[in-house]
Amino acid sequence: MRAVTFQAPGEVRLDEKPEPEIAAPDEAVVEIEATGICGSDLHILHGRVPVEPGFTIGHEFVGKVLEAGDGVRRVDAGDRVLGCFHTACATCAACVRGDYHRCADGRTFGHGSKLGDLQGAQAEKLLVPQANLTLRRAPEGMSADVALFAGDVMGTGYHSVAHAGMRAGDTVAVLGLGPVGLCAVQAARAGGASRVFAVDTVEQRLELAGELGATPLHLEEADPKRAVRAETEGRGVDIAVDAVGDPGPLELAISLARDAGTVSGIGAYAGRGDVLLGLAWLKGLTLRLGLANVIAHVDRVLEMMSAGLLDPTPLVTHHMPLDQAAEAYALYDNREALKIVLTP
Amino acid sequence: MRAVTFQAPGEVRLDEKPEPEIAAPDEAVVEIEATGICGSDLHILHGRVPVEPGFTIGHEFVGKVLEAGDGVRRVDAGDRVLGCFHTACATCAACVRGDYHRCADGRTFGHGSKLGDLQGAQAEKLLVPQANLTLRRAPEGMSADVALFAGDVMGTGYHSVAHAGMRAGDTVAVLGLGPVGLCAVQAARAGGASRVFAVDTVEQRLELAGELGATPLHLEEADPKRAVRAETEGRGVDIAVDAVGDPGPLELAISLARDAGTVSGIGAYAGRGDVLLGLAWLKGLTLRLGLANVIAHVDRVLEMMSAGLLDPTPLVTHHMPLDQAAEAYALYDNREALKIVLTP
Amino acid sequence: MRAVTFQAPGEVRLDEKPEPEIAAPDEAVVEIEATGICGSDLHILHGRVPVEPGFTIGHEFVGKVLEAGDGVRRVDAGDRVLGCFHTACATCAACVRGDYHRCADGRTFGHGSKLGDLQGAQAEKLLVPQANLTLRRAPEGMSADVALFAGDVMGTGYHSVAHAGMRAGDTVAVLGLGPVGLCAVQAARAGGASRVFAVDTVEQRLELAGELGATPLHLEEADPKRAVRAETEGRGVDIAVDAVGDPGPLELAISLARDAGTVSGIGAYAGRGDVLLGLAWLKGLTLRLGLANVIAHVDRVLEMMSAGLLDPTPLVTHHMPLDQAAEAYALYDNREALKIVLTP
Amino acid sequence: MRAVTFQAPGEVRLDEKPEPEIAAPDEAVVEIEATGICGSDLHILHGRVPVEPGFTIGHEFVGKVLEAGDGVRRVDAGDRVLGCFHTACATCAACVRGDYHRCADGRTFGHGSKLGDLQGAQAEKLLVPQANLTLRRAPEGMSADVALFAGDVMGTGYHSVAHAGMRAGDTVAVLGLGPVGLCAVQAARAGGASRVFAVDTVEQRLELAGELGATPLHLEEADPKRAVRAETEGRGVDIAVDAVGDPGPLELAISLARDAGTVSGIGAYAGRGDVLLGLAWLKGLTLRLGLANVIAHVDRVLEMMSAGLLDPTPLVTHHMPLDQAAEAYALYDNREALKIVLTP
Repeated sequence: MRAVTFQAPGEVRLDEKPEPEIAAPDEAVVEIEATGICGSDLHILHGRVPVEPGFTIGHEFVGKVLEAGDGVRRVDAGDRVLGCFHTACATCAACVRGDYHRCADGRTFGHGSKLGDLQGAQAEKLLVPQANLTLRRAPEGMSADVALFAGDVMGTGYHSVAHAGMRAGDTVAVLGLGPVGLCAVQAARAGGASRVFAVDTVEQRLELAGELGATPLHLEEADPKRAVRAETEGRGVDIAVDAVGDPGPLELAISLARDAGTVSGIGAYAGRGDVLLGLAWLKGLTLRLGLANVIAHVDRVLEMMSAGLLDPTPLVTHHMPLDQAAEAYALYDNREALKIVLTP
Repeated sequence: MRAVTFQAPGEVRLDEKPEPEIAAPDEAVVEIEATGICGSDLHILHGRVPVEPGFTIGHEFVGKVLEAGDGVRRVDAGDRVLGCFHTACATCAACVRGDYHRCADGRTFGHGSKLGDLQGAQAEKLLVPQANLTLRRAPEGMSADVALFAGDVMGTGYHSVAHAGMRAGDTVAVLGLGPVGLCAVQAARAGGASRVFAVDTVEQRLELAGELGATPLHLEEADPKRAVRAETEGRGVDIAVDAVGDPGPLELAISLARDAGTVSGIGAYAGRGDVLLGLAWLKGLTLRLGLANVIAHVDRVLEMMSAGLLDPTPLVTHHMPLDQAAEAYALYDNREALKIVLTP
Repeated sequence: MRAVTFQAPGEVRLDEKPEPEIAAPDEAVVEIEATGICGSDLHILHGRVPVEPGFTIGHEFVGKVLEAGDGVRRVDAGDRVLGCFHTACATCAACVRGDYHRCADGRTFGHGSKLGDLQGAQAEKLLVPQANLTLRRAPEGMSADVALFAGDVMGTGYHSVAHAGMRAGDTVAVLGLGPVGLCAVQAARAGGASRVFAVDTVEQRLELAGELGATPLHLEEADPKRAVRAETEGRGVDIAVDAVGDPGPLELAISLARDAGTVSGIGAYAGRGDVLLGLAWLKGLTLRLGLANVIAHVDRVLEMMSAGLLDPTPLVTHHMPLDQAAEAYALYDNREALKIVLTP
Repeated sequence: MRAVTFQAPGEVRLDEKPEPEIAAPDEAVVEIEATGICGSDLHILHGRVPVEPGFTIGHEFVGKVLEAGDGVRRVDAGDRVLGCFHTACATCAACVRGDYHRCADGRTFGHGSKLGDLQGAQAEKLLVPQANLTLRRAPEGMSADVALFAGDVMGTGYHSVAHAGMRAGDTVAVLGLGPVGLCAVQAARAGGASRVFAVDTVEQRLELAGELGATPLHLEEADPKRAVRAETEGRGVDIAVDAVGDPGPLELAISLARDAGTVSGIGAYAGRGDVLLGLAWLKGLTLRLGLANVIAHVDRVLEMMSAGLLDPTPLVTHHMPLDQAAEAYALYDNREALKIVLTP
């Protein structure tokens, strides 16, 4: 079958790979209908996340179950399904606590041997372990563009505010308006945020955030600290989401959060960072860091998507065939696309 | 000044009463701009809640601060304000826990000596104790019809789902579509409920609930149990709100809630009730009963009203002068009005 | 093998039954070292919980894994283990929420076909499905008398206060001092309850509760309402646990709880009950009803048992061989024993 | 009256100061029975926290109410009381949310004009504003040594684990065994922590932690990371408390916490810090930073002290007369004392 593989930093290519086969009763094979390119795929492309040459990449998908093992109960062969970006064992100490994203045996699709040695979704077919947790039936009539987001980008947007304990009526700031940031804006609005401030430097993304109900603030031209202070009676926001994952936006998030507020660090930090510890301490902040727990959220996210409360459709700027994956990655890398959906 | 007073079961009347005066530093006097008639006022009218003859009734209000004591910091003379339906001392054990609705010294406006001996808001002027907690500035440009609801009916609707721990994406059922039930529908939708089932027997109220985004279910004609089961894959709703306060709707709420779900009993129960204890236990339900903690919610409710996420305007069916209070009560008692706003 | 079977209301007997065999990869067979008789076994004995004649009963056990399927990861053949009283699938909507006790496919050991058709633990060997969730390794050096309680009675005691949201420093009342009530007393004390009031009519149980750190209150001689009021500055307790499961103790629990407090109904209610709804509503109570979610708690309970913070040893009044099961049930039914441990 | 005043970095002295007088209805004057020297007083002594020369310092106290304003309801003249280290208004947005430690008008005793211009407690008499929140009656028979801790050091220890969401059975590490760290050890044990690892470099403090039920780990000699891993099946602790407030212990806390665990930063961070952001993100940690919310905890802390569950007595190494304050500060500064109690 055809599959998009990592070859070397800067190079991905369409390869011929063997078809996946079920080896355990909790596994399923899915025929891919559509698969997305995600910001974390760029980390692989650039060699920042090390993946073996020839490894199939991609971790967002919608498709049809071709075959399901004996132990698979939540979906059946023939079902149209969507997937979460990682698996979880369901029964380790972390999973029993509900921390599926920290499963001791969790494996991430398309991220090489270090993250579980699980081939990726940018292919014609995909082997899905732990299918009872990893897969969900796509709700009747849901488009691939929407369903694709449930177990990855929208699940992450939802997590960024839910894990921060957002309550209806809270004020929220979102820093960084890539797909995750824009989904955070949607999740905040859908969950009853009274005001959402959306910060970025790209006009187009600010506009889109505005259309989604946020107050757009240009990072360099608008003075977000002053603007947020002015519109919150000087207090700052209840929740500040850093959807970038760098010390810079984290510092701004700490500045924007109100006393005893929460900073949600959903973007991937790496290594060490110089942090405004003194200010965070004076304010009495809570910082919630880490990957999203999408398995815990996916049922609710799907319900909201079905109801039209969350709708990532405007984020999909390009549809391309799987065969043009190399072009798609180049386009995405040049920031000419917000979200690209590939179809085999 | 003119004030609406309880006289005898079935009889309210406009009386001349002395003007209120500040006697403590935490008190304020408010000139009433608009005041509502609430379902609980009917309990007084009917004599079910005993109030002394001649006592001024009413507990919903918007107005202007005429005078504020030395200790009043959150509002100033001249401010346009709205009020909560009761006061709280802010420093007893219950208040320190955040349970303002169970304040050891809490007093309810217009409910006679038993509930704190505090004259009511259906008058030209009102004495407001504990003004720092009881009053809030009305947000710029907010109509009286909207502001009136923040500290009573909408605060109660918000509480009915927030206190039940609703999360974005949850499914909710609301039983009883009077003003509180309709506000619960709005609060559920605004907070991200993926589906809201609204149950009543009055066509007009069911229609209004439908316009607010709920799935209307006629109690007798629609078989709510079967309908909710059919639309929730047989599971029932995450949260079932009883906005009536009788054993019948409580029983239905217990039946509609999913396993390990929550029943929110916001309607006023009285005396003993025959309850489906066995079913509630088998399902592992949580029942959260009692008056709303509006002081804890009012800031967030106002933010949501300002943002247009909560809008009680469609619930106000009648505006009448204070002088016609007797007629207004008769109308309301005959269920010919959903919400009546009186203006002095 | 030998196994204790239900025969008819009032009659249990030792039978010869076929040895269990593994039929699915997530199953294990456990050789029983010790097994307890529980209050719910009496419901079976008396015919209140219908079980097929010849069905093996019992749901508390410690033993050694004889054989484990391919999918069993948390324990290995040869391990000394203890079990939870029921299984859970780990991946249905309830399990993903963490509500293992409401698993759509949950099965209870030794409770007949209606509760999952799973033969019981009062036998020489036991088939354990979903072994990854159902079994835990017994901590080094833990006695069978202690380990036996982790997945049933002590897990239920822990749940009764944890699920009620107990915080260190809270005051607690426990109504009914059978094994579950006494474990609730221990869990409350170990979790930092500043005072625990323990109510029953049996002197011996009251004494034991006193030794465990509670203030014993004889239901009829001590006037628990007055006593609790006197020792809580008139407020009542933060959490009142009904460990009986009848409308009477529930009514007392509602009376003893403070305003905005919590009633934890851990005892099994059946059918309808006459409830003090009005008082519960006035107080603004939360009622949390249902079976314990022992799978969610078992790791923490074991840690506390290992640390000596929870110790059910004083509750075990009798050790008897499995062959004397009929005598043991008679003894237990006559309330001559608090807890009987059977050994094959 | 006599009072301990800050004069210049390194110099405190006993001065004659005017007696305090009530100026507002919510104020009280307390005759000091005993007052403590706290770690944060050393920050003042060293000039790191700027205080005006001649300002009375100290913020821990027990004493008798000499006079109380009209609005003071929770205590009466003649009552023996203890205090919290800061005041709160009870009605600003932060207070209504329960974040008393972030009150918009909060004032800290004995910390100069920048923190509210409130004279300190190391004196014969003390003016206490907002007495309803700031003061509590000392429970019958409680020694001054114990009561002194409730509204400051023990409240902070309690907060360090409670605010981190500790549940009975959790494992906890405490870094830094000064009085706050030792109180955190006690609070963790009293709240049901199954194991507490206590890290420091001072043998005496490690021994005391061991006596309080912790596993002492010498920072340099014991390799805390390896030791904690070895005793938690490689997982790390549920909650790691940094009771020091420097980037070093914060880094260790991040290393010791388990995946999806919590780091509680109760020690005062200042300025910027180099933080292991990447590791914190990979682990999915929650960081809760800031001063303790002692007003929210003081009632529960007092209940636990009365019940003997929390007992700071072993921490008090010295009792000295107020007149020897200068000597006491020198002793404390030389780390020759763990806790010094001064009596006027």
